[in-house]
Amino acid sequence: MVEENWYESIRGFLVDITGVLYNSGGIAIDGSILAVNRLYSESNVRFVSNESSSTREGICTMLRKLGFESIQPDHIFTPAPVAAKYVTKHGLSPHLLVHNNVLSEFSNCINSPNGRPCVVLADAESDLDFINMNKAFRVLHSSSNPLLITLGNGKFYHRADQGPCLDTGAYASALKFAVEDAGRCCEHLVIGKPEETYFMSAVEDLGLTKEQVVMIGDDISGDVDGAQKVGIKGIQVRTGKWRPEWEKHPTIKPELIVDNLLEAVALILDSQQRIKN
Amino acid sequence: MVEENWYESIRGFLVDITGVLYNSGGIAIDGSILAVNRLYSESNVRFVSNESSSTREGICTMLRKLGFESIQPDHIFTPAPVAAKYVTKHGLSPHLLVHNNVLSEFSNCINSPNGRPCVVLADAESDLDFINMNKAFRVLHSSSNPLLITLGNGKFYHRADQGPCLDTGAYASALKFAVEDAGRCCEHLVIGKPEETYFMSAVEDLGLTKEQVVMIGDDISGDVDGAQKVGIKGIQVRTGKWRPEWEKHPTIKPELIVDNLLEAVALILDSQQRIKN
Repeated sequence: MVEENWYESIRGFLVDITGVLYNSGGIAIDGSILAVNRLYSESNVRFVSNESSSTREGICTMLRKLGFESIQPDHIFTPAPVAAKYVTKHGLSPHLLVHNNVLSEFSNCINSPNGRPCVVLADAESDLDFINMNKAFRVLHSSSNPLLITLGNGKFYHRADQGPCLDTGAYASALKFAVEDAGRCCEHLVIGKPEETYFMSAVEDLGLTKEQVVMIGDDISGDVDGAQKVGIKGIQVRTGKWRPEWEKHPTIKPELIVDNLLEAVALILDSQQRIKN
Repeated sequence: MVEENWYESIRGFLVDITGVLYNSGGIAIDGSILAVNRLYSESNVRFVSNESSSTREGICTMLRKLGFESIQPDHIFTPAPVAAKYVTKHGLSPHLLVHNNVLSEFSNCINSPNGRPCVVLADAESDLDFINMNKAFRVLHSSSNPLLITLGNGKFYHRADQGPCLDTGAYASALKFAVEDAGRCCEHLVIGKPEETYFMSAVEDLGLTKEQVVMIGDDISGDVDGAQKVGIKGIQVRTGKWRPEWEKHPTIKPELIVDNLLEAVALILDSQQRIKN
C-alpha cells in the first residue's frame, strides 16, 4: 500500500457518531469500539455530531452501554448547547421545535419574550407533524425579520428500525420555502456541521490546528465536504448513510474512502507507528 | 376613476376559490356570492383552484351550501384529476401522499407496480407527519430516477380555524432538499397553478384566448405572477392570504389590486356596461 504523506501530520481525529460509531437503532459498527480505544490510547479524539435528539450525557451513556467505555461527555460536541448559548447571548425569543430529550439544554433561555422571535429547529422526529410545523411557520411568517436557527442542516439519516429518515435540513427547507419570496428573506443560522465555527470549536478543544486533524464521517456533504471547505482533511466511511454512487462523486473528493472507522484509524496510526520504529 | 382600456377585451374570468370566494373554515367573503352571480349572468367564468383536499363535486357541494348556487362542478378545475390522468398516461407507479378526500380521484391508477416509481404529494394536512414524509422520501431516495409530482406548489394558505398553514410546495421543498445533491436531481412536476398548461386548460374550456381572460386570486405568486407569466392579466384581491407588503411588491405588479372579488368584477363589468350603453 502506498502511504499518504499527510498521515504523518495527523495529531487528532474528529469523528462523527451516528453511522460511524454505531447505527442508529443501537448496534456498534464492526471495529468501531477497537478504533475508539486506539484513538484514546495512541492519539487524540473529539466526537463531532449533529445529534440533536439527546444530550451529551445521554449520548455518552448510550455509547458506553454499546461498549465505547473510554468516551467522555466533554469530548462530545453537539449543537443544542451551542444554540442555547447563542440564544441567550443574543437575547432571542425562541420557539423550540426540538426533540423532547434536548429541551433541558434550553432551560436557561426560553424566556426573552421581548427579544427577536426565532425558531430553533432540530430533528424532533415524530413532533415534526403538521400542527407543530405550522406553529413554527407562523412565528417566522409573522416576524418582520424572520430568523431560523437549525441544529445541523442534514438531508437525511438512517434509522436501523425504519430506514432513511428526513433530517433537519429538509424541514428547514420547507419553512424557508414558505416564508421567503422575492421581497422577503428568512435568515438561516446553522449550528453544527458543516459550519466552520462548529468544526473549529472541536479543533481548538484538542489544542491543535486544522492541518493537524482529520474528520471521519458517513455524510459526504456535512462531514467530508464540510471539513474540506474549512481546510480539514475529510475521510468518508462506507457505513451509515453511505451511498455507492459517492465512490465517484462529481464534486466531492474525500482524502480517503474506507470501509469503516477502524480502517481509517489503522491506516493512519499504523503508518505513524512504522515511521516511529 | 380612470378606466383601463383592457377591461373592454375581457370575455372570461378565471377565479381562485379559497381566499377569494370564501375563507377556509367556511365563511363566504363579502360580496363574492353577488360577484359570482354577475359573472354567470353577464360573462363567463371558470374556477381555477389548487385545492387538493376535496374532489370537484365536494367543493361544489360546499360552495353551494355557502350560497354560491350557480356554480357547476364542470366549471371547477382542481389538480387531482389532472394528476391521475398523467399517472395513468405515463404508466407510473405512484406513492400517494394526498388527502384522504381525494384518494378516490386516483382509484384507476394506483396499480402499475412495474412503472416508474413516483411520489404524488398534495396538501394531506395532518397526514403530513414524520412517518408519512419518510415513506415518501424513501420512494424517491431509492429510485434511480426520482420523480415528484405535486398538486400545486404553494407556499402557504390560511385556515380560518388555525391561521396560516404550510402548503404543498413547502413539503415538496423538504423532499427535494433531502433527495438532491450535486450528483443527483429529483424531477419535480407541478400540476396546478402556476403552471401554464393548467391555466390554459381553463382558458380553452372557456373557448377564449389568454388575452381575453383575467385571473383573480389572493396568492401573488401562484395566481397573479403565474397568470402574468403565461400572458394572462392578473388581479390581486386583499382577502385570503393577502399581505399588506404586497401593495408594493418588488417584482410582481398585478394589473389591479382590489379589496375583494366583487370590486374586480364590478370594475370590469360596469365599465363594459357603460361602453355598450
